[in-house]
Amino acid sequence: MSTTAPQTLKGFRDFLGADARKRRWLMDKIRVVFERFGFEPLETPTLEYESLLLGKYGAEADKLIFGFEDRGGRRVALRYDQTVPTARIVAQYRNQLTLPYKRYQIQPVWRADKPQKGRYREFTQCDADIIGSNSRLADAEILAIYASIYLEIAISSIKIKVNDRQQLITTIKNTGVSEEQVFNTIQTIDKLDKKTQEEVIEELVSKGLEKEKAHQLIQQLNTGTMSESLQSIIDQAVQLGIPRDVFVYSPTLARGLDYYTGMIFEGIIPEYTVGSVGGGGRYDNLINDLVGVDMPAVGFGLGFDRTLEAAQELGKIPDFKASAQVLVTVMPEYEAYSLKAAAQLRKAGISSEIFLEDKKLDKQMKYALAKGIPCIMFIGDNEVKQNLVKLKDLETREEKEVEIEEVIRIMSKL
Amino acid sequence: MSTTAPQTLKGFRDFLGADARKRRWLMDKIRVVFERFGFEPLETPTLEYESLLLGKYGAEADKLIFGFEDRGGRRVALRYDQTVPTARIVAQYRNQLTLPYKRYQIQPVWRADKPQKGRYREFTQCDADIIGSNSRLADAEILAIYASIYLEIAISSIKIKVNDRQQLITTIKNTGVSEEQVFNTIQTIDKLDKKTQEEVIEELVSKGLEKEKAHQLIQQLNTGTMSESLQSIIDQAVQLGIPRDVFVYSPTLARGLDYYTGMIFEGIIPEYTVGSVGGGGRYDNLINDLVGVDMPAVGFGLGFDRTLEAAQELGKIPDFKASAQVLVTVMPEYEAYSLKAAAQLRKAGISSEIFLEDKKLDKQMKYALAKGIPCIMFIGDNEVKQNLVKLKDLETREEKEVEIEEVIRIMSKL
Repeated sequence: MSTTAPQTLKGFRDFLGADARKRRWLMDKIRVVFERFGFEPLETPTLEYESLLLGKYGAEADKLIFGFEDRGGRRVALRYDQTVPTARIVAQYRNQLTLPYKRYQIQPVWRADKPQKGRYREFTQCDADIIGSNSRLADAEILAIYASIYLEIAISSIKIKVNDRQQLITTIKNTGVSEEQVFNTIQTIDKLDKKTQEEVIEELVSKGLEKEKAHQLIQQLNTGTMSESLQSIIDQAVQLGIPRDVFVYSPTLARGLDYYTGMIFEGIIPEYTVGSVGGGGRYDNLINDLVGVDMPAVGFGLGFDRTLEAAQELGKIPDFKASAQVLVTVMPEYEAYSLKAAAQLRKAGISSEIFLEDKKLDKQMKYALAKGIPCIMFIGDNEVKQNLVKLKDLETREEKEVEIEEVIRIMSKL
Repeated sequence: MSTTAPQTLKGFRDFLGADARKRRWLMDKIRVVFERFGFEPLETPTLEYESLLLGKYGAEADKLIFGFEDRGGRRVALRYDQTVPTARIVAQYRNQLTLPYKRYQIQPVWRADKPQKGRYREFTQCDADIIGSNSRLADAEILAIYASIYLEIAISSIKIKVNDRQQLITTIKNTGVSEEQVFNTIQTIDKLDKKTQEEVIEELVSKGLEKEKAHQLIQQLNTGTMSESLQSIIDQAVQLGIPRDVFVYSPTLARGLDYYTGMIFEGIIPEYTVGSVGGGGRYDNLINDLVGVDMPAVGFGLGFDRTLEAAQELGKIPDFKASAQVLVTVMPEYEAYSLKAAAQLRKAGISSEIFLEDKKLDKQMKYALAKGIPCIMFIGDNEVKQNLVKLKDLETREEKEVEIEEVIRIMSKL
């Protein structure tokens, strides 16, 4: 066999030990919230027919799809997002789905984007959508789930900027912008986050809007008041237990995607300045456009990597360094005692490593420290005679001779 | 946007609702056991340099690798197993890993195999390995973890066939088989599971062994006794809490892969006749062969799909049909009450769906029944006046007016 220089592909990541545990921790938290709202998990294959994905995300995005010909001559492609596969599911299984279909999906997607800080070619998406309902309550549930995830991980500073895409479109049209220019205008307005008002007005003018009208448009947006439907959705989300001050009416919030048709929102963690941590909204025509099945829908995508990074910065993630709670050391003469003791700990649900080699105690302590294991359990002459074990706290260096049941009691409390 | 006929690629699967939950349930059980033994999670990218994988699994397997040229002109390939990526990890991160490296990995792999019943092109592997230790205790831990997974999901009928590959090789060589023919002979012996003794002897003869010697070999294997090292490994696994009768000494167990160097094993669930549910053993040279780093190792791969299927057949998997424990119905006049009640249930960890539309109660009951939701909660005139909720059990059709706290108590007990 040939020997290959070990290397990870650019834009791809390995997750070892603590990093993998942190990701798992966040995924489990998100999953618990989704399930609590009665949403069903969905998993779709990594590969789809390429034709399902091409042309669905725009010409630029087509270039970022990982597509190839498989050995059977089929053009296939790696999952690019979770919305298009879900649209396929809705079409393919529509006779067996009970509508509205409330599903969540937490899977990796692949994009051949230029890798840069915080942008990877393989990354995790967390989506929740309600498909087949045009009830405002569905919008409220979507807002409530999204907010609940952040409240669940104790990021109570979460702000959700909300707007009504329909109202935005009406305001834009009322300024005299032509039907064809509406989405172009929305994309420019969407930059108000990153650019000054003057720069945005300049861009609107460069796109053909009269300067006066551009000013007027921005002013009208800035002084807009919530539409009745948006107000009602927010009220419902508050009744669903979300503090009212989580929601911030943002009449200039535009969202970059063209398919939104109603309520739109974006999550912001003020202390985390890299950017929004996800967003979504109502998209009543998209499923029909994608797979020819008429289905109103509302949902969101949560930025998993950014949320993880923010939670990390805010100190909300437990320290997952330790591979185990106890390292059980084994003296060859008393091997059977030590193995039985380890089995007892594990049976009680206490994560326990066994030191596998016959090495001096200082080597074993070094191993425990390197792996973040806080305690060592030792059974030698004295312990066997007294039917006890020695437990050493590696931080305080305190040692005590106790019964194994006492170790279980101590460890279960940690 | 174009409309595409919805279709899943051959050999790939969608997992909706209950199916996805069952898979998650089993994965969580497996994960808990791995963590209890102090093993660390590892996640490697879906894509690797194709050169890392090619030539590592044999010429036949090379044809099954999903490889392609990415947009940057690199030859890349989808993960084919978890051993080769782990070997890469060991080589790439060897300066930061504390040895022995005890890692588990639960990820999908892709093989362009001909799809057939029970064989998919995308399927999940569950591996645990101890890398960097030649201690017998490491072998015992691996056996104990593997067995513990089945005990954890209450498949106490699990049998683990064990053998010593070194002893097998010695026996084969002693029959006069040449060094070059040893692995070929092992592969033939490996078929004793599926073929009769006579057929295997015939195949040995066809491969050049004299008939008498073939007979002699099979007889010697059948009457073999456990090697000292295998005996000691089993004893240790028993001390680690595994019932002794789980282990079955199988002197003809061969395992099809060439890289094993010591203890080998295979898991069998007697009631499940499709085939083995995984296996493994010691492979002290493989990592060196793969990435040029000298590392003794022992581990296993657990057959996730088969284990799930067996657990299902044996009735060990909870019924995951229900999307939620309660369906909260909403009368428009009392919407605020209903939403607040739903929020209370969810806060108490009770999975609750809200019925989103304004439809008659029989439609709502139909929805609950279709989604397996066992109870409906209703708030109307009477309930608001008395500050109660109505809870209806859809199976018994029993209704009662209770306080929301009582609903929480009832539901928490289920």
